[in-house]
Amino acid sequence: MTPDRHKGDNHMIVRAELFGAKPEQGFDNTLAVRSALESCEEIDGAKLVFPQGVYHFWPDRAIEKHLFISNHDQDGLRRIGFLLTGRNGFTIDGQGSEFIFHGPMIPFVMEDCSHTTIRNLVIDWEKPMFAQGTVCRIDAESFDIQLPEGAYYKVEGNAVWFEYGGKLEKVWGLNEFDKQTKAPAYQSGDRLSWGAYSKVRVEEAAAGVITYRGDNIKLPQAGNVIVMRFGRREDPAFFIDGGEQLSLESIYVHHAPGMGLIAQKCTHIHLREFNVMLRPGTDRLVTAAADATHFVNCRGQIVIDHCLFENQLDDPCNVHGIYARIAERLGDNRLLIELVHSMAKGILIAEPGDTIEFVRRDSLLTYAVSTIKDVKALNKDYLLLTFEQPLPSDANVDDMVGNATWNPDLTVVGCAVRSNRARGFLISTSGNVLLEGNRISAPGAGVKISGDANYWFESGAVKQVIIRHNEFLDCNYCCPDWGRAVIDIDPEIERPESFEACYHRNISIENNVFATFDVGIVYGRSIDGITFANNVITRSDSYPLHNVMQYPIQLYACKNVNIVSNQFADGTKIIALINDVEVDIT
Amino acid sequence: MTPDRHKGDNHMIVRAELFGAKPEQGFDNTLAVRSALESCEEIDGAKLVFPQGVYHFWPDRAIEKHLFISNHDQDGLRRIGFLLTGRNGFTIDGQGSEFIFHGPMIPFVMEDCSHTTIRNLVIDWEKPMFAQGTVCRIDAESFDIQLPEGAYYKVEGNAVWFEYGGKLEKVWGLNEFDKQTKAPAYQSGDRLSWGAYSKVRVEEAAAGVITYRGDNIKLPQAGNVIVMRFGRREDPAFFIDGGEQLSLESIYVHHAPGMGLIAQKCTHIHLREFNVMLRPGTDRLVTAAADATHFVNCRGQIVIDHCLFENQLDDPCNVHGIYARIAERLGDNRLLIELVHSMAKGILIAEPGDTIEFVRRDSLLTYAVSTIKDVKALNKDYLLLTFEQPLPSDANVDDMVGNATWNPDLTVVGCAVRSNRARGFLISTSGNVLLEGNRISAPGAGVKISGDANYWFESGAVKQVIIRHNEFLDCNYCCPDWGRAVIDIDPEIERPESFEACYHRNISIENNVFATFDVGIVYGRSIDGITFANNVITRSDSYPLHNVMQYPIQLYACKNVNIVSNQFADGTKIIALINDVEVDIT
Repeated sequence: MTPDRHKGDNHMIVRAELFGAKPEQGFDNTLAVRSALESCEEIDGAKLVFPQGVYHFWPDRAIEKHLFISNHDQDGLRRIGFLLTGRNGFTIDGQGSEFIFHGPMIPFVMEDCSHTTIRNLVIDWEKPMFAQGTVCRIDAESFDIQLPEGAYYKVEGNAVWFEYGGKLEKVWGLNEFDKQTKAPAYQSGDRLSWGAYSKVRVEEAAAGVITYRGDNIKLPQAGNVIVMRFGRREDPAFFIDGGEQLSLESIYVHHAPGMGLIAQKCTHIHLREFNVMLRPGTDRLVTAAADATHFVNCRGQIVIDHCLFENQLDDPCNVHGIYARIAERLGDNRLLIELVHSMAKGILIAEPGDTIEFVRRDSLLTYAVSTIKDVKALNKDYLLLTFEQPLPSDANVDDMVGNATWNPDLTVVGCAVRSNRARGFLISTSGNVLLEGNRISAPGAGVKISGDANYWFESGAVKQVIIRHNEFLDCNYCCPDWGRAVIDIDPEIERPESFEACYHRNISIENNVFATFDVGIVYGRSIDGITFANNVITRSDSYPLHNVMQYPIQLYACKNVNIVSNQFADGTKIIALINDVEVDIT
Repeated sequence: MTPDRHKGDNHMIVRAELFGAKPEQGFDNTLAVRSALESCEEIDGAKLVFPQGVYHFWPDRAIEKHLFISNHDQDGLRRIGFLLTGRNGFTIDGQGSEFIFHGPMIPFVMEDCSHTTIRNLVIDWEKPMFAQGTVCRIDAESFDIQLPEGAYYKVEGNAVWFEYGGKLEKVWGLNEFDKQTKAPAYQSGDRLSWGAYSKVRVEEAAAGVITYRGDNIKLPQAGNVIVMRFGRREDPAFFIDGGEQLSLESIYVHHAPGMGLIAQKCTHIHLREFNVMLRPGTDRLVTAAADATHFVNCRGQIVIDHCLFENQLDDPCNVHGIYARIAERLGDNRLLIELVHSMAKGILIAEPGDTIEFVRRDSLLTYAVSTIKDVKALNKDYLLLTFEQPLPSDANVDDMVGNATWNPDLTVVGCAVRSNRARGFLISTSGNVLLEGNRISAPGAGVKISGDANYWFESGAVKQVIIRHNEFLDCNYCCPDWGRAVIDIDPEIERPESFEACYHRNISIENNVFATFDVGIVYGRSIDGITFANNVITRSDSYPLHNVMQYPIQLYACKNVNIVSNQFADGTKIIALINDVEVDIT
């Protein structure tokens, strides 16, 4: 078929309808999209355009690929709606169309694309990978959930099952949402998920009514909405693997059975009005089943501007690298390294020319660097690294290595974060980080700066973080579940005071407004250079105090601390705890 | 590293030891082999040679690939000892070495290789993917199995668990072996596996003694050996995918946690002294956990000569194609087809230029043929076929298609088959088939010629089969579990007599010796042209009669039947049943 080509915006326009794409209920567009994408491959600067409408996609006939997707449940074949591989100068414009997916598949995969843009479209699932009901009865050790009328479910073997993608999936966790705020309920956390969930007893009280029972069970509040989680975190809305200069603009992700976007090994990416948000008018309280956006081993500029991230079941944004374990020294300049975390398997975390940091597992401090000559993936667990230089003599098995080259700059401006599960912005990159003019309300920390080589293996140390002119609104209303303070800087170093050097550096928090119902504003450990200046702290009465922190600012093992010119709205004397010393910072 | 190259047999010899291969207990040779194979890639006509010794391989550092392996449990990454991709004129010579594998991995994968030979080596597993014990007590509804001293096992949740590859695997079936013959016990079959097994109750009677209990449980005989099956059929000893002119010579497979060899989409393959056999002196009673050899969608010549296939847990040899379901007509000349069987997923069953047969599901008869112009794999389930010609007007959804081009000739000479689970030679190819000078003793049919578009989807019809000068020795001692007669020709057509044409053609059974304790020699349906001539039938007293067949020869819906000059040793009048008519064939 010869595409209808129009010159416009320096693009050759390819019309999806000429390949059979139809905005019709019940019509599967996967084959039409595949044909259209194949045709675009032969056209320089192609722009695939969809007439505005609602397009449906099923996994049955979708293209399939084995993918290693970081921070998702790994290993397996994934069905894909739009697979873009090695595209250059390509654009997809949905012109405001809705793409509705049915069951387990990834809407967009971009592999090694450059100068490629996706814009103007809405992503949603007909049936999402969660269920919800309303708390309709409570007593001392049990509560009932009323499911919506007509909900298909099964209670069997002390478990509740829902259908997703043609299979019955077992519920493995509950999250309570406040019926008024449509956000996680005060102090709800994950206290009814995973291990805690596995201890509850489940019965069917009546048709459409499920009873949860248990000793010391965390009781929700009557009238609140319970989100019931099931399924595996397999299918993000967007998966970007490699490539450079990628843009996503004016995109609305109403649901994904994984993250909204996960990008790994990518250089320069721009999200503008990339919104993970509830569909207007919906009664669903969840958007993505995991993080809104997540960036692993990227470099260049990550720019996130004017995005709304709400009601997803994990953090709005996480930027980090991967620590890998030294498994064996092989000769003078070769190392066998292991990708330890199950969600980091198969990621090629280094390439020739990269600078590798050698890190001790207790201090997280870098004791040597070296340059990669060759990388060979043995399998999803092990990589063979050959270095230009001889290995440091004290590089020991079980030490960690991180990649010092792939650390992006991050700019987040004009974004709003609210009503999601867990934290706000998770920042673990040594690039220049700027958070400016955002409005952040998370049930955990609004900003979390960590680094850890023992549990999550997410690197690394920050070197330059500026947080300014943001509004932090009632963060940490599930505390200490997801952080201690509004800004929580807590690398996983057991005894940071026992090491001379600090892990993090140069964090500046200036000219922000913190509206908070509780005490904790900043918690920090192992920082060399932290400024907290010209901020305004106001008191809200949105929630009861939980008093997890004793002082608004608590810093440990920190150097070059600068706390000046902040306004505490209630005018009382403000005492911070700096390296175990009480300091009046009023 | 520069390989040590010697000219010999027109080969450049590459010595494995120069790449670090070491025949040492506890030393993992995977990385050394990988380096050696990489080095060989740059050498025309390379021959990789191992000094004779015992080499060990672990999966941890082995190369990994996502493979679709026909007739194995599908979908997933596989670890591989020797991965040969696109090699031409390459040889591996083990010089009699033993390669011992530890846990889940495939010793040899050959993808798209040509003129490549592997020879002179032994394959075994340190710990096999089965366990065995001895029946030490029986009563009316239970029996005990005594495990060998020191066996590691667990009885928990009404199940027995054994360790394999670092994981505990649940037993899902038992096979009884006769302590005298070391073959499946008379009439044992699979009567304690899968569904039947799931009904038994399991207890630990004492340390190392397991009790199985159940109503109407199939009881074994005291003193017999019980093979306990667990794990998935994932890792054959040899997996050949594509390529041509491949030879395997003087190879001894003592165990594989899958088939001995599975070849798919391969042209010309020669097995000479490729033996799937018990290690001399072992007390193990099982070799491969599945078929000894299996060929799917191959073409050219398959030659199997002077091979011994014994004690594997499925058939010694199966040659077939794959029937796929018409899922949708897409325009004039395009079909969407579905690979139906879970063990046939992901196999690209056609390529441009191939002739495709259109087959009705009830008759299995071909009603049209057409030529492939283009094949596109949408995913592991669906292929998009474009034809040179318009589709037959009566090609309907749910009809089947088979590939008429990829049908190999098969020559089996001088082979021995014995003591395995299930059948002997399974033949479903329209190529010329010759079985000559073999000694076949299987607990099911010695030769099975089927074809089926409803359960296993294994095509296709035979056109020329010669079975001559073979010795069939006490086949069918588990009957009717794995066949009715020594030669069982039974395409899965419910009412073959209702169709004018026959499915199979030209089967000649001449000059064979059938030594049998029972009645049935040949059972056949839907054959045009069957000759049974100059055979000698002798009576053995190895087992009691089971009388599953009433007549030594029973043929239904057959044409051109020719039964002449056979000798029945006991000299009595012999009546065959030919198309429901009793015929004296003495």
